[in-house]
Amino acid sequence: MQFDAIIASSFENVSYLAGTRIQTQRLIPDRLALVLWPRDGDLALVVCSIEESQARRETWFKDIRTYEEFEVPPIAVLAELIRDTGLGRAKIGIESHHLTAAHFEELRKELPQARFESCDRFLDRVRMVKSPTEVQQLGKAAQVTDQAIWDAFLGARPGQREVEVASRMQLAVLEHGAQSVAFCILTGDRTTMAHPDPSSRALQGGDVLRTDFGGMFDGYYSDLARTAVVGRATKRQSDTYSALWTAHNGAIASIRPGILARDVYQNCKDEFARNGLEFGFSHVGHSLGFGLHEYPLLAPHVEEPLVAGMVLAVESLHDVPEGYRFHVEDLVEVTDKGHRILSRRGDWDKILETGPR
Amino acid sequence: MQFDAIIASSFENVSYLAGTRIQTQRLIPDRLALVLWPRDGDLALVVCSIEESQARRETWFKDIRTYEEFEVPPIAVLAELIRDTGLGRAKIGIESHHLTAAHFEELRKELPQARFESCDRFLDRVRMVKSPTEVQQLGKAAQVTDQAIWDAFLGARPGQREVEVASRMQLAVLEHGAQSVAFCILTGDRTTMAHPDPSSRALQGGDVLRTDFGGMFDGYYSDLARTAVVGRATKRQSDTYSALWTAHNGAIASIRPGILARDVYQNCKDEFARNGLEFGFSHVGHSLGFGLHEYPLLAPHVEEPLVAGMVLAVESLHDVPEGYRFHVEDLVEVTDKGHRILSRRGDWDKILETGPR
Repeated sequence: MQFDAIIASSFENVSYLAGTRIQTQRLIPDRLALVLWPRDGDLALVVCSIEESQARRETWFKDIRTYEEFEVPPIAVLAELIRDTGLGRAKIGIESHHLTAAHFEELRKELPQARFESCDRFLDRVRMVKSPTEVQQLGKAAQVTDQAIWDAFLGARPGQREVEVASRMQLAVLEHGAQSVAFCILTGDRTTMAHPDPSSRALQGGDVLRTDFGGMFDGYYSDLARTAVVGRATKRQSDTYSALWTAHNGAIASIRPGILARDVYQNCKDEFARNGLEFGFSHVGHSLGFGLHEYPLLAPHVEEPLVAGMVLAVESLHDVPEGYRFHVEDLVEVTDKGHRILSRRGDWDKILETGPR
Repeated sequence: MQFDAIIASSFENVSYLAGTRIQTQRLIPDRLALVLWPRDGDLALVVCSIEESQARRETWFKDIRTYEEFEVPPIAVLAELIRDTGLGRAKIGIESHHLTAAHFEELRKELPQARFESCDRFLDRVRMVKSPTEVQQLGKAAQVTDQAIWDAFLGARPGQREVEVASRMQLAVLEHGAQSVAFCILTGDRTTMAHPDPSSRALQGGDVLRTDFGGMFDGYYSDLARTAVVGRATKRQSDTYSALWTAHNGAIASIRPGILARDVYQNCKDEFARNGLEFGFSHVGHSLGFGLHEYPLLAPHVEEPLVAGMVLAVESLHDVPEGYRFHVEDLVEVTDKGHRILSRRGDWDKILETGPR
């Protein structure tokens, strides 16, 4: 690597490097957990004393240093570790898109002779190819999540409240391996809003039921979007969904090792045109793992070639002028020969009409 | 205020100032949402175009500016807004414990003549007193959460898996007003770890069942900790719990307007000594709201006087040498006359023995 050492500070990178899952990294941002990764030498961890017993249980690192919250600044403990390692004048990578301005300022004061550079992209690329175990975990999480949506949507009927449908989905993932729900977007009438919480509004026949839903499974996200119609779909709804599904699967079909992320984006755009759909998104998917939007994104500026072992959440959406949105999202593994869709348990080939058969 | 303008960037402060609940602020940190709050003039919002329809629906701000993700940097749009407002050379407050090093660097390049200072504490103090509506929301969330824990704990019996108890709690809060589960720590054998996820281990008679659990209710957290014993408690367990409960309530009893946050900490420490318990924590509670650990913390370095309208999560825990931990946490409103406990639905006065009566 092009750094003498790297400081990892985000939940994603600390979890990946140290093997920990310290929830408070996300919940209490100032309670820093930090990994020092020297190019030559052993990795070391700095954690709050409150998290020490969990960290020792989870990590394989031998050098674990702790700080007492509010008594010793975590950055001071990190700086001491860096000096101990002989890196006080080194070129050090920081997660410039995670480390806060205040903590970076502290670090510069503690180590005035070190040179700091962004290592965000370097760490993105370290994490972008998943191990077979990670693929299996992400695939299982996707299957559970898809089944949860399918079952809840099948049962959704006029009069049921949005929150009831959402609760069914959430319970199902919790019962099948998720430790928590990461996010749950669901609506029957505010579908053109990107991220609405489910409301206590009662569903009506003809509503377009849209969800974008994910759980947290041993640190890994699931993230799927599905659309259905409550009761009977109109022909226009049915046709529009079919066009979107065709375009979506067309974009997925182009996924194989060697293709650039931006070309999958372009293929999706072409598929939309071919199927008579309007296209207006900044990306059509992203890698998934400890983070929700991981590198590479499937976006016009991303020249990363796909490689086997990447796991991508590929999504397509279409706004209908009448004021609703269709949205589908699947999880796709890049394999040696091409790709494999990991997320299909329900039968989403045609628009799902919810409620009594 | 001591700034010509403030830039709010965190979910907590943007939600509070703009009235929005943009979930992706937490899930996709680089998709910035920013509030400019000039001392003289109207507040304005910068959001990603993807979030525009939701933002317009939720905020009362008139000036909303958008950026296309990956095409225009959000900081560039913010900087243009600042220049338009005539603040290009002003003293500007930033959330230095939220804004990342990379975004701060961009901001300094865009506005080389502005002076930037931390406004973290200023914004903390803006949010620290809750309105009656906020108190009601936090109280309702606490009641639902306490009832959920009580019901799930009452039913917990040997052979049941930790995740099953956790699922019951989680479903209950989702059915009663939470949009999502914020965190769910639960264990019967790893109680001395601070934040373990529930596992698939089957509970055994005599296990100390401990949870620290919170939901997300319209943007507001709940956060309660409870402890029980699976089956029959030993006399030592029962006595230890009673001592902890007495100390905990003693600390709460000292809460009233005018007392300093650090003095509640000291009172808790004194109560522990009086009840023969070991004390070793950096804080004994924190304010609660859009954030999990809000200001003021009940900690030795915090000289903030409590005022009516603050809502505090007060927590006490005690490690028993045999290798388990008791932990209790309640939500307390500071009132004109003293305080009011918002979080008691279950009967937690004696150690709860779970399972068949």
